[in-house]
Amino acid sequence: MAAPYVSRPTPPYYAVIITTEPSGIDPQGYAEMSRRMSELGVAQPGYLGRESLTAGDGGDLTVLYYADAESIAAWKGDLEHLEAQRLGRERWYARYRVEVARVERTYAFDRDPSGHAS
Amino acid sequence: MAAPYVSRPTPPYYAVIITTEPSGIDPQGYAEMSRRMSELGVAQPGYLGRESLTAGDGGDLTVLYYADAESIAAWKGDLEHLEAQRLGRERWYARYRVEVARVERTYAFDRDPSGHAS
Repeated sequence: MAAPYVSRPTPPYYAVIITTEPSGIDPQGYAEMSRRMSELGVAQPGYLGRESLTAGDGGDLTVLYYADAESIAAWKGDLEHLEAQRLGRERWYARYRVEVARVERTYAFDRDPSGHAS
Repeated sequence: MAAPYVSRPTPPYYAVIITTEPSGIDPQGYAEMSRRMSELGVAQPGYLGRESLTAGDGGDLTVLYYADAESIAAWKGDLEHLEAQRLGRERWYARYRVEVARVERTYAFDRDPSGHAS
């Protein structure tokens, strides 16, 4: 299920779009590494929220939101501390792509702005 | 399952991040409207590709990619031609959010650049 529907600030803010395709090797190790990377992302100053879905085959589409580009640079620095795991990541991933994007405009509709997701 | 893994041009290019939560009313009508909106998006000049996943509860997270902001403006114009369906969309959607973002940087890994998704 998608993450809870969280409001976002007025643009500009930043989105990190992460598309992954696991190799299928060692799915437990993959899940643990993925969880740690996600925890690092959520702990960064400037973190605003996330949207994330997992396909049946384990592929993920995740969007993490940040207030500014500096927060993302800090997170990327933390991820590089995980570079010792590079070979492990190459073991776990068939492919991944990370796209850093500046959100310029938003359009939204909420049937019940005061309510919670049904 | 995620869309096929398609290469993307060198940044900058644009991403439209669409997060939807259906109301649960008339799921067939929702699916048909969603399909038509998606077709409009894919048919726009400048369309580069998409990533899309659907949660078990029907919520969607979709990212559509375009070469430039003008392509997105044209698509938004087409969507406004669907404005006669506004009440219908409010019937089908509990919530939605559309974020237009300029992709500034990308990082990618591909274990087998010549191959296809396994």
